[in-house]
Amino acid sequence: MGQIVAPPWAGVGGRVARLTGVTAPSTFDLASDATDLLQALIDVPSESRREAVIADAVETALRAHPHLDVVRDGHTIVARTQLGRAERVVIGGHLDTVPENANMPSRRVTVEGEDRIYGLGACDMKGGVAISLRLAAALTAPTRDVSWIYYEAEEIDSEFNGLRRLADERPELLAADFAVLMEPSNAVVEAGCQGTMRVEVSTHGVRSHSARSWMGDNAIHKAGPILERLSAYQPRQVEIDGLVYREGLNAVGIRGGVAGNVIPDECVVAINYRFAPTRSAIEGEAHVREVFEGFDVVVIDAVDGALPGLSHPAARAFVAAVGGQPSPKFGWTDVARFTSLGVPAVNYGPGNPSLAHHRDEFVPVTDLATVEAGLRAWLTA
Amino acid sequence: MGQIVAPPWAGVGGRVARLTGVTAPSTFDLASDATDLLQALIDVPSESRREAVIADAVETALRAHPHLDVVRDGHTIVARTQLGRAERVVIGGHLDTVPENANMPSRRVTVEGEDRIYGLGACDMKGGVAISLRLAAALTAPTRDVSWIYYEAEEIDSEFNGLRRLADERPELLAADFAVLMEPSNAVVEAGCQGTMRVEVSTHGVRSHSARSWMGDNAIHKAGPILERLSAYQPRQVEIDGLVYREGLNAVGIRGGVAGNVIPDECVVAINYRFAPTRSAIEGEAHVREVFEGFDVVVIDAVDGALPGLSHPAARAFVAAVGGQPSPKFGWTDVARFTSLGVPAVNYGPGNPSLAHHRDEFVPVTDLATVEAGLRAWLTA
Repeated sequence: MGQIVAPPWAGVGGRVARLTGVTAPSTFDLASDATDLLQALIDVPSESRREAVIADAVETALRAHPHLDVVRDGHTIVARTQLGRAERVVIGGHLDTVPENANMPSRRVTVEGEDRIYGLGACDMKGGVAISLRLAAALTAPTRDVSWIYYEAEEIDSEFNGLRRLADERPELLAADFAVLMEPSNAVVEAGCQGTMRVEVSTHGVRSHSARSWMGDNAIHKAGPILERLSAYQPRQVEIDGLVYREGLNAVGIRGGVAGNVIPDECVVAINYRFAPTRSAIEGEAHVREVFEGFDVVVIDAVDGALPGLSHPAARAFVAAVGGQPSPKFGWTDVARFTSLGVPAVNYGPGNPSLAHHRDEFVPVTDLATVEAGLRAWLTA
Repeated sequence: MGQIVAPPWAGVGGRVARLTGVTAPSTFDLASDATDLLQALIDVPSESRREAVIADAVETALRAHPHLDVVRDGHTIVARTQLGRAERVVIGGHLDTVPENANMPSRRVTVEGEDRIYGLGACDMKGGVAISLRLAAALTAPTRDVSWIYYEAEEIDSEFNGLRRLADERPELLAADFAVLMEPSNAVVEAGCQGTMRVEVSTHGVRSHSARSWMGDNAIHKAGPILERLSAYQPRQVEIDGLVYREGLNAVGIRGGVAGNVIPDECVVAINYRFAPTRSAIEGEAHVREVFEGFDVVVIDAVDGALPGLSHPAARAFVAAVGGQPSPKFGWTDVARFTSLGVPAVNYGPGNPSLAHHRDEFVPVTDLATVEAGLRAWLTA
């Protein structure tokens, strides 16, 4: 008789099989070398909505350190120092990854003279989590109180996002003067983030048999001017706090057609607008409607960006401590969630953000050292 | 316990259930009124590849008439007079229909003063089949020898087409001086047919994250000029034998896009070109490549049209006998198959071709009478 073979989309079966085959650790050794800890983190699968095992192990590891006050909410863990310092900062990262893509287990490889850790989540963002866990354990008396946050479900629809849930239900756990999200940023400070909006711009016509096309009205032909406007569009470059944010207005999808012998009565262009954080989502929508005036425009969703906030004293102190030249962040990150709570926030983590979600994602070992040294300098100054 | 419910695509179960519930006729009464015979034909389901029951009943009905020499090939039936006339003509029609669309059983309704038969296949093309069967039985001594053909699988991929199989394997059964296909033609002669070609015109680019769109190259934006050329295209109108064929070059589909946050690296426009029968498929392809010069053009498939052939003596005699003003045929039909065998052929049948494949297809009762009278006049002159 044949074996029962799980179909490619039946992730659960495959995961359980592997977890029972390779005993998952019940805790992590936070005193181990950063690369060893990172590899241990990668080797515990933690696709979004399957973070129970890694969250249990992280919680156990943190509870072993009496200088930390540990709170768990779902699979999100907050570990706080309570030293009564003048300033409190959040250092956050998510525990989940996108689905596995034949990139497990972790491996350490030297490529073109660079020492790298490969594997699912190496870049996005278990590299940052490894450093954060090491520092949470090691820094028993940081000069700023720290709320170390390890949260669930960042890679999927925001209804599941652990940080969003804390913001809505337990905002006191996020209270801080400044926040650092350890998303990959090439080990330099990436400040703020752009807003993003998805819109659909449509044309309409009348169906007919394509052998008698003059009896119909071709909606796909009418979409030409939409594509021409996109092609001719000159995106703004907006300077804020010395950082230049490059906007973008792009078709990310197009669809139309009924059958091979039918004049189509609808064509839909899916568009993604990325806009500098000086512009609100509402202002962005008005701009997009102006660009596509005369067409049917439907906004699917939109989120505000976040201003870099580098003029804030806490941010200035952070940039001075970690060094380097800050860059603008183009993609949307949970930094915007802190900004909306009134907490200035930046991205600062190891790894190249362009590698996020790629099968061959990796993190350079030197990035781990750079970021750890930067944060240590800031928290001990 | 729940019932086992057939999913919507499980046509077989539904059909069998109905056929066992409503006893299918084992034959048809070819002496009955044309509308009664048509309703009986509609009420035997005969979606393509499920023609066995209707073909059995048609074969049995024809074999009851000793003046016909009946041959069966799969579910295709050829019934020939063998009178040694100077001329032999084919009168053909297909037995299959497109899938049911809540348009069974048949019904007779008067709408806006017009007496109509509604139901799946009423227009395409059991109306023509009903007349053909009545005449095959009634005309024991036509003035031209007739090969009456009832064939399978016209509505699907031509690999299954019964007429194609006869042309390839038993071409002697199609030998004739002239052929009439009883596809709906508003009860007037529709001559020739246009060629048709499917092509895909593509653009290519480079993927990147849509937050850093300047690192990619948007293939959808590049498709604007393809749509502009389609929009600006002026189709030819070609006069042949006094008939004006209107060509058409139309997008029938468009697709592109990887994900909501990715700059797309490909966009494909599916195009249908309908061309007058003075132009071969090879010439048509050269024309399309010229229109889309600079783009990647792939021909998916192409078939030649058929010249109207109205100058042929047999065609002239037919038009004179049935009367009316011939029209050009725009859609591709099996007329082209006869033309490729060297047999001049026309479309002549009851019903409006624009209603073919529509849920509400019907045939006017007066069309049935007109076409029957026309064919009878021709075959008894």
